Amino acid sequence: MLPLEVLERAQAELLCYGDTGMSVMELGSDSPEFKQILQDAEDGLRKLMNIPGNYKILFMQGGASSQFAAIPMNLLSSHQCADYVLSGQVSKKAYDEAKKYGDIVIAASSGGASPPYSTVPVTKRSDFRPDADYVHICYNNTVYGTKFHYAPDTGNIPLVADMTSCILSEPIDVTKFGLIYAGAEVNVAPAGITVVIVRSDLIGGARPDTPSTLDYKKLVDNTSAYDSTSIWCIYMAKLVFEWILSIGGLDEMKRRNEKKASLLYDYLDGPGDYYTSPVDKKCRSMMNVAFHTWDGELDKKFIKEAAEHGLINLAGNAGVGGMCASLYNSMPYEGVELLIKFMKEFVKNNPKITK
Amino acid sequence: MLPLEVLERAQAELLCYGDTGMSVMELGSDSPEFKQILQDAEDGLRKLMNIPGNYKILFMQGGASSQFAAIPMNLLSSHQCADYVLSGQVSKKAYDEAKKYGDIVIAASSGGASPPYSTVPVTKRSDFRPDADYVHICYNNTVYGTKFHYAPDTGNIPLVADMTSCILSEPIDVTKFGLIYAGAEVNVAPAGITVVIVRSDLIGGARPDTPSTLDYKKLVDNTSAYDSTSIWCIYMAKLVFEWILSIGGLDEMKRRNEKKASLLYDYLDGPGDYYTSPVDKKCRSMMNVAFHTWDGELDKKFIKEAAEHGLINLAGNAGVGGMCASLYNSMPYEGVELLIKFMKEFVKNNPKITK
Repeated sequence: MLPLEVLERAQAELLCYGDTGMSVMELGSDSPEFKQILQDAEDGLRKLMNIPGNYKILFMQGGASSQFAAIPMNLLSSHQCADYVLSGQVSKKAYDEAKKYGDIVIAASSGGASPPYSTVPVTKRSDFRPDADYVHICYNNTVYGTKFHYAPDTGNIPLVADMTSCILSEPIDVTKFGLIYAGAEVNVAPAGITVVIVRSDLIGGARPDTPSTLDYKKLVDNTSAYDSTSIWCIYMAKLVFEWILSIGGLDEMKRRNEKKASLLYDYLDGPGDYYTSPVDKKCRSMMNVAFHTWDGELDKKFIKEAAEHGLINLAGNAGVGGMCASLYNSMPYEGVELLIKFMKEFVKNNPKITK
Repeated sequence: MLPLEVLERAQAELLCYGDTGMSVMELGSDSPEFKQILQDAEDGLRKLMNIPGNYKILFMQGGASSQFAAIPMNLLSSHQCADYVLSGQVSKKAYDEAKKYGDIVIAASSGGASPPYSTVPVTKRSDFRPDADYVHICYNNTVYGTKFHYAPDTGNIPLVADMTSCILSEPIDVTKFGLIYAGAEVNVAPAGITVVIVRSDLIGGARPDTPSTLDYKKLVDNTSAYDSTSIWCIYMAKLVFEWILSIGGLDEMKRRNEKKASLLYDYLDGPGDYYTSPVDKKCRSMMNVAFHTWDGELDKKFIKEAAEHGLINLAGNAGVGGMCASLYNSMPYEGVELLIKFMKEFVKNNPKITK
């Protein structure tokens, strides 16, 4: 979802951006307007996330999954080894891709939890190899509804975090991370760009066979324009950043997201055992709320009837089952109220059978 | 530039696509609407270019420059060597990137022409190594205003062509090529996707360390959705394909483009030596018309005053100098008339001084 105000602004400006007489989509990559949009987007994100000057911001193409390869290709340097923390299938996918490029090990995993990945690993500094070039985590685990509520202590080892499904949902301390990346499609902009926030000292060590469009140094030197960046997506990101700043920044965003998530979690934790949240309470995500009914077959009925009521995308991942409600930044509080209203009606219409 | 009809359609549908109640930009990659747009775009391009069933169509991210790496990573197989034909700086860039991945040689080059790259090499089969995995050319050379008017005979060696700046400008025989690729930003859609048309037998041989988002096989298996494809750009491409089909397809597109280019070339070839086209007449591009005045300093004045008259982006590349008028598909005939009108006025206001 994107904020309605943002979509309306984009619609109004679609045919003619400013006084250019052309659409944003038609701006040449060497035009001053293009460069200004890129600069505005960077400035907006830097202000929103309070990103220090020693971090570069890149708007790259390829989706977060391109970073699964770009990160080891750029960051595996002195020791050619990195440690991965598994907290779901996305982090597993990042781990599998990284194995192509160096000595990659799983330092910790919550795959053995019951149900699998219903919590995130609690790590200590000694879990990581002292010579690891970086440690990788997935900060928010969409289909499992879990989230790291702490940044693992990695000592001097750069911490790399996939924040695709939680970026801009609340303030975070960027300085705890060596690199943060996020596919735009959740809270930033339409799919098509990936935000990479990387500490300057980690740039410049890419292996020689790194494709130029994945080489952070080349992108920095070309202000993200090396690979025909999608100016439309960056423009949409700029509008989203301005929207969040206009409502009060990430503190207000967090307040709204907490209010939405609490409403749903409080209902799940309330009386009755019709609905259950399988997630370790300490690791609950504000963005993705996983739950299921007392019966697997009933879950399918719930998802089908919810969709008929306009409540779509509630199906949990095939491998996980159950339901997963995504309460991303653009989801209004009223959307959660509607979901709970439907959940209550569903209980009435489908009374629990004691087997 | 994009066709006005296309932009107006996109504007009208921006807030609500069909009866989805959401913007195209908000469609989930697993939604039926997303899949239908992807299918419609593929069908539209297949019909427009008459692409046989044994060719796959991929809408990839990263810009054409990502393909500079993806092509050798996917196609260097049996012999790990490929031959490149240099016809400008873009093909040189592709050559330099490919050298990271195998034994790459320059089979022919027009860099020695006067002025450099003012023509394209004429090649014969014996110019290419028999064991080359592929031969690479840049079909249209933007800043030089040249174009291949033939597909080099490479025998059984797959011919790979960068058609970024000429795709969809006229019908071409796809079967003469093993792989055709084009950054969308010229004639297809806004920047953000790259069209790859690849013969099926060339898919599946990617080197083990190929990033998954650049592996043609993985993209085919995931219907282009592996890397959070920009559905907005693919939707815009679909609208552009429908627009070209509606006006009569590539035969009509070619007729319009030839009419535009002839108008300008005829004026350049006309009486007087105020303006000159430096390009070998046999290799003139329909998309990019390179020319200059009788004086280098005057060129700068021309470009500046043309911009003041709303005729922008006429500056030739820094390394090439002079002017380059891009007459892409969306440029109307009237645009060329305006340019020539300005050129005539400029002659009046800046009479030639005989030194």
